[in-house]
Amino acid sequence: MRRAIALAARGLGTTSPNPVVGCVILDAAGRPVGEGWHERAGGPHAEVNALADAGAAARGGTAVVTLEPCDHTGRTGPCTRALIAAGIARVVYAVADPHPPASGGADTLRAAGVDVAGGLLAEEAAAGNAAWLTAVRLRRPHVRWKYAATLDGRVAAADGTSRWITSGPARADVHRLRAQSDAVLVGAGTARADDPHLAVRGVPGDRRPLRVVADTGATAVAPGARVLDDAAPTLIAVAHDAPEERAAALARHAEVVRLPRAADGRGLDIPALLTALYDRGVRSVLLEGGPTLAGAFTAAGAVDEITAYLAPALLGAGPHALAGAGITTIAQALRLRVTEVIRVGPDIRITAVPANAPEEL
Amino acid sequence: MRRAIALAARGLGTTSPNPVVGCVILDAAGRPVGEGWHERAGGPHAEVNALADAGAAARGGTAVVTLEPCDHTGRTGPCTRALIAAGIARVVYAVADPHPPASGGADTLRAAGVDVAGGLLAEEAAAGNAAWLTAVRLRRPHVRWKYAATLDGRVAAADGTSRWITSGPARADVHRLRAQSDAVLVGAGTARADDPHLAVRGVPGDRRPLRVVADTGATAVAPGARVLDDAAPTLIAVAHDAPEERAAALARHAEVVRLPRAADGRGLDIPALLTALYDRGVRSVLLEGGPTLAGAFTAAGAVDEITAYLAPALLGAGPHALAGAGITTIAQALRLRVTEVIRVGPDIRITAVPANAPEEL
Ligand SMILES: NC(=O)c1ccc[n+]([C@@H]2O[C@H](COP(=O)([O-])OP(=O)(O)OC[C@H]3O[C@@H](n4cnc5c(N)ncnc54)[C@H](OP(=O)(O)O)[C@@H]3O)[C@@H](O)[C@H]2O)c1
Ligand SMILES: NC(=O)c1ccc[n+]([C@@H]2O[C@H](COP(=O)([O-])OP(=O)(O)OC[C@H]3O[C@@H](n4cnc5c(N)ncnc54)[C@H](OP(=O)(O)O)[C@@H]3O)[C@@H](O)[C@H]2O)c1
Repeated sequence: MRRAIALAARGLGTTSPNPVVGCVILDAAGRPVGEGWHERAGGPHAEVNALADAGAAARGGTAVVTLEPCDHTGRTGPCTRALIAAGIARVVYAVADPHPPASGGADTLRAAGVDVAGGLLAEEAAAGNAAWLTAVRLRRPHVRWKYAATLDGRVAAADGTSRWITSGPARADVHRLRAQSDAVLVGAGTARADDPHLAVRGVPGDRRPLRVVADTGATAVAPGARVLDDAAPTLIAVAHDAPEERAAALARHAEVVRLPRAADGRGLDIPALLTALYDRGVRSVLLEGGPTLAGAFTAAGAVDEITAYLAPALLGAGPHALAGAGITTIAQALRLRVTEVIRVGPDIRITAVPANAPEEL
Repeated sequence: MRRAIALAARGLGTTSPNPVVGCVILDAAGRPVGEGWHERAGGPHAEVNALADAGAAARGGTAVVTLEPCDHTGRTGPCTRALIAAGIARVVYAVADPHPPASGGADTLRAAGVDVAGGLLAEEAAAGNAAWLTAVRLRRPHVRWKYAATLDGRVAAADGTSRWITSGPARADVHRLRAQSDAVLVGAGTARADDPHLAVRGVPGDRRPLRVVADTGATAVAPGARVLDDAAPTLIAVAHDAPEERAAALARHAEVVRLPRAADGRGLDIPALLTALYDRGVRSVLLEGGPTLAGAFTAAGAVDEITAYLAPALLGAGPHALAGAGITTIAQALRLRVTEVIRVGPDIRITAVPANAPEEL
């Protein structure tokens, strides 16, 4: 199973909206004879790849797979059928499939006389699919909020300058996070202040996550903005009542989606924005700020993971990492659980999840 | 020498205004026959303790000592004389004594025919004496600024509540830092908001660092304040023109020192405050905030080390770790060098020094 989990990880970033899956086939004598992983959405599933690799040796053997084999016909046929057709006698999987249309695979296999066991190294396998599992469970994308701040929590200086707070290695690391995400999102304030490009640079592979700007009035992004170039697809989210001519000007360079306004009137409705992304196949979002949009996501309970790059520097003035999260007293603080602390060049990268998040997904 | 450095460290927190010093005596054949360290200010120096431990075996032997032996008669006689009298043939020391009245020891020993070598493991020995070496070099106490903040850099919530941002283990760690310091300092804002006690609790030994409040107008600390109890000595620093009756009321419970106001009119003159502390034998100060006083110290270039306790929590509002440091653009950011990152309970402790500080003292 450890091998299958390692195989699965090779698909990270290219399988969305599908999960990453790895599979090892053992022959009837228990010798590994085939392996495969789900390489990209629309392509064959891990089991099918592994069966092809194993050939006739699979007959009477065991399939070790990180996720319960799927039972439905999507862009590819159900894996259950492929496993049965190949004469697999036993299936061992790690994580049950939480996805209603695909689940039920274990039952189908059992009905066909296959010996089925689930739960082996489930925690480890789930960690590799954390974003996808969150997305399927909540029916909205997994949101990782990333920010770069000084040790005293400032994301820009008093005059608005923020290039560069963190080091080259930390910025390169952000491109790696982008490449693992299906979409990269910023608010209108950041679009205005920084004219960000939001594309992936310097990461092997050809990942072009959707670039998204929450621009309620269609006033922040204008033709000529870097985010409108052809480096990756772009989605501008505007309010249902945003001026038609502005939206039309943007629509020549990007997809424009109209969304309801937030109940409190401050920008767009966050759940609606997430649903719009989910409907476009986005299962993981890298929220790159700024502080106001991050505050709205925090207040909406829509931050699933936080990656903070802290630069060893002090500013003592300037905008903060987070604003307007609606927290007024210490007892309301959003408590987190630190999952990793590492040094990235001279900077420190801290990863955390809300303390009320499940220990293992 | 490594043994001598370990012995020296036993004196941390009790030798001020003296440095920590450790000494090992080897006999003429190179066998260790005595060891000692400087235990407390006013008590015998490390060399004298080690010579007493070695007795007659020291004759013709070697003294291995972490700091150049002193050459002046303070509260105890010069160590050079004691080493010569004991018939020591060779002295090996790590760090040269930068303290004008005490230096010259190596020369005196050489003139008496003792073979002298300096610099062995100097870096390691200097690290053990970092605060003292800074103090003697700059003729002001070493200042370590400590703060406890959320991941987004807030030291209190919007309503001023700050108990407790960090965990029990982190707060216990702060008491350890206090016990290693000669003085603990806060500003009037913190005195007003938190009525802090500033005493050492839960640390073995009997350390009672001087409690200091920078209270320009003598308005923040009033009779009945916790900092005025008898847990440790207290110094209230007020402006030269602070109302006489207020100062007199404080003087019944604490020492009151009158200092010039800062040139910019915001509070007390920081160099004068540090000189007043130095003159009282304070070689290390733990600056416990708040943000305004820390900003003034930062602007004055008087922060030598920073210890940040970051709690895994988000607030999105409330006062920041640092304010008013006079930095307006990113190019002016005070760049630091991280020297340590550790987990303390659920929290993260980051230690850093200004990037322009010497690599080794
Ligand atoms: N160091 C970092 O990690 C980092 C990252 C990003 C930004 N920054 C800095 O942060 C600053 C910009 O911060 P910001 O807070 O002004 O920008 P922001 O969070 O990017 O944008 C806030 C804007 O987003 C729009 N928005 C749409 N829906 C929203 C909702 N539901 N809730 C809240 N806002 C919503 C609103 O503008 P409309 O009403 O016009 O749509 C709102 O004013 C810049 O200085 C930038 O350099 C730093
Ligand atoms: N989490 C933490 O680590 C931590 C630590 C400490 C405080 N806090 C929080 O911080 C808040 C208080 O912050 P604060 O900034 O108001 O308090 P502060 O920094 O403790 O005190 C500032 C005051 O110190 C006096 N002062 C004297 N000399 C000064 C100088 N040279 N420069 C600047 N000030 C000088 C001034 O008042 P006068 O003119 O009246 O003398 C000034 O207003 C409270 O909410 C407290 O809970 C948090």
